[in-house]
Amino acid sequence: MIIVKGIILIIDGMAGRPLAELGYKTTLEAAETPNMDKMAENGICGIMDPIKPGIRAGSDTSHISILGYDPYEVYTGRGPFEAAGVGIKVIEGDIAFRCNFSTADDDRIIIDRRAGRIREGTKEIAQLINSIDLNENVEVIFKESTGHRSVLVLRGSGLSDQVSDADPKLDGKKWKKIQSTDNKPESIKTAHILNRVVEESYKLLKNHPINLKRIEDGENPANIILPRGAGAVPHVQPFSEKYGLNAACIAETGLIKGIGKMTGMDIINVEGATGGVDTNLHNITNSILESIKTYDFLLINIDGADEAGHDGNLTEKVEFIEKVDEVIKNISQIQDIYFILTADHSTPISVMDHTGDPVPLVINGPEIRVDDVVSFNERSTYKGGLCRIRGSDIMNILRDLMNKSTKFGA
Amino acid sequence: MIIVKGIILIIDGMAGRPLAELGYKTTLEAAETPNMDKMAENGICGIMDPIKPGIRAGSDTSHISILGYDPYEVYTGRGPFEAAGVGIKVIEGDIAFRCNFSTADDDRIIIDRRAGRIREGTKEIAQLINSIDLNENVEVIFKESTGHRSVLVLRGSGLSDQVSDADPKLDGKKWKKIQSTDNKPESIKTAHILNRVVEESYKLLKNHPINLKRIEDGENPANIILPRGAGAVPHVQPFSEKYGLNAACIAETGLIKGIGKMTGMDIINVEGATGGVDTNLHNITNSILESIKTYDFLLINIDGADEAGHDGNLTEKVEFIEKVDEVIKNISQIQDIYFILTADHSTPISVMDHTGDPVPLVINGPEIRVDDVVSFNERSTYKGGLCRIRGSDIMNILRDLMNKSTKFGA
Repeated sequence: MIIVKGIILIIDGMAGRPLAELGYKTTLEAAETPNMDKMAENGICGIMDPIKPGIRAGSDTSHISILGYDPYEVYTGRGPFEAAGVGIKVIEGDIAFRCNFSTADDDRIIIDRRAGRIREGTKEIAQLINSIDLNENVEVIFKESTGHRSVLVLRGSGLSDQVSDADPKLDGKKWKKIQSTDNKPESIKTAHILNRVVEESYKLLKNHPINLKRIEDGENPANIILPRGAGAVPHVQPFSEKYGLNAACIAETGLIKGIGKMTGMDIINVEGATGGVDTNLHNITNSILESIKTYDFLLINIDGADEAGHDGNLTEKVEFIEKVDEVIKNISQIQDIYFILTADHSTPISVMDHTGDPVPLVINGPEIRVDDVVSFNERSTYKGGLCRIRGSDIMNILRDLMNKSTKFGA
Repeated sequence: MIIVKGIILIIDGMAGRPLAELGYKTTLEAAETPNMDKMAENGICGIMDPIKPGIRAGSDTSHISILGYDPYEVYTGRGPFEAAGVGIKVIEGDIAFRCNFSTADDDRIIIDRRAGRIREGTKEIAQLINSIDLNENVEVIFKESTGHRSVLVLRGSGLSDQVSDADPKLDGKKWKKIQSTDNKPESIKTAHILNRVVEESYKLLKNHPINLKRIEDGENPANIILPRGAGAVPHVQPFSEKYGLNAACIAETGLIKGIGKMTGMDIINVEGATGGVDTNLHNITNSILESIKTYDFLLINIDGADEAGHDGNLTEKVEFIEKVDEVIKNISQIQDIYFILTADHSTPISVMDHTGDPVPLVINGPEIRVDDVVSFNERSTYKGGLCRIRGSDIMNILRDLMNKSTKFGA
């Protein structure tokens, strides 16, 4: 029987380094994970370098690599993925930026880069930005994200992502004039347009009713937008076309949803999926069980372990991994699928950021060369039958198991 | 705590193949190496292909790869590294050659390629070569190395390394006319200049007082220089700039010192470091212990095991490895460093030359994912947590452990 359904479940930042506090175990080694261990027992294990050994991957570049795209080609900057993540239908050649809603005073000093951590009204403010017409043959597309975050896209010909940021990175400084970083006509033009957008936002937003209300309430108004992280939207062959798999993405953060969007996957939003350790794993589980009926392939990202790692919170990381183990129990009961469990990178408690250490990986499914590994962690899996592979190998291995790949040669 | 000091200790040619004489053990397996084994017990192990599996690396190309440079780009020939090794400040575009001082008779036949293995007086002879003015807008830079060896550098515009050797490789033959190998104007010009240098050396050296004395003493005079191994000096980004690490190189041979020089490292010369099994390991140890106080990073090469391998001397190789084990004991006592022990290639006794077999590797340092391996050799380490890596991975792994690398993505 040929199985053509597959799930890649990525527990964001799950891997780590041995900690003295845990008797030189990692958080994953310390956690009770009977269902992950069961997967190891029934499957083939290995360790995986998302990009290559020692390279500190971001969640975005790692997912890009795991999906079989070359991050060094596709990843031009964070802007395009954030833009896709908030639902802007970006097209090749667009220049995309992450933006903050910020607060500038009358002397053009940024007094609050996060506009009082504004939560409400950003949608209305965004509409005003979208009305900007620069008469420059360039379309300005703007959308709010969560909190003070937003995304700006410039669409038109002769643009470039080789431009600097407006964001001064610190409060108490004037915003920066955006400049070309390569002195080419395209980037000079792009910088000129961007500076006009920033100026216009400063002019327009000052008197927006929502900002007038915020000032009345003693809150910092969102009276300027500050772009950063320019990236040109790359050419990305749709996942379904590349692999012949009808795919969906279940993710919590805009960043990973953006990768799903950029690769043309359907995005399945889950109620109560916060991206934190308080996320609703029950809803995520149900969403997985439901979606696999419709789709050939699911890319799933659960983010809480990474958050706990960034926070340096050992207990929360261990506990969250144990909670995720329940999700795995449920996925393991789905019949006739190939199920790959891994992480996108390590986020050790001691480092509180991503590291380039390899991550554990296990594959379950029919006709797997089951190995001797019986537990799932950083140091049990390197003895497994997959030895040490790269993120870019995963889709090839999965499609081969599914008998979906073409023979190279005769 | 973030550790930013690192040592890579390369025991040149230490690895080998199983030998019937040793009950099918390798020389490293047969040697008593309690301190290397201790490192394995306390660290993470693996096997490493200096370039890629099965590629027979030279010491030079292997070191280049381990330092994170692509040998296929950087290694244009042995000349540039030898030149840097003897202390010539080469610059990008120079064409460098290894040379022999040789003996030619009056019929222009090379009667002794090594000029009676001349040991003394080569510095004075070199001065005469340096005085050559061809009036061709090309600078001739010449320096003696050890024994009959020397280095020639041509500096100027429009030169090329696509030229043949003057060295006939066998005694009793005329020296060869140097020729362009690609028939381009640059190499034709270079060959013309080189032939003039060789002719001039033959004219000038004949009557050098040192040679007249040698003839008087019944020794073959060094009356000609024969260039070979042309290489254009490549662009090499300085190591300190590439990695943000203040680095020094402790090496015995000109070849490895040359790699240190080319990558901009400080070269630390050790008294009594011969590059043979008779080298002064005590002085080398002291030099390491002293240097690590000043530098962030040390590249160390100890050469004796390779020499014994080339000589096919089983006993000397085993004994030398055992002596080196004492050096490791001392380095292991340095606090707060990452310490990587490996070899640059295998030099099996049976082959008496380098082979493409992988080499063992171990890393010690804080927060390492210590594995189950408890001895250090070719066949214990492949079961370790690093599995099988490449030389080009090492600096990425080291910098990641040091928290010196930049995250790629978000």
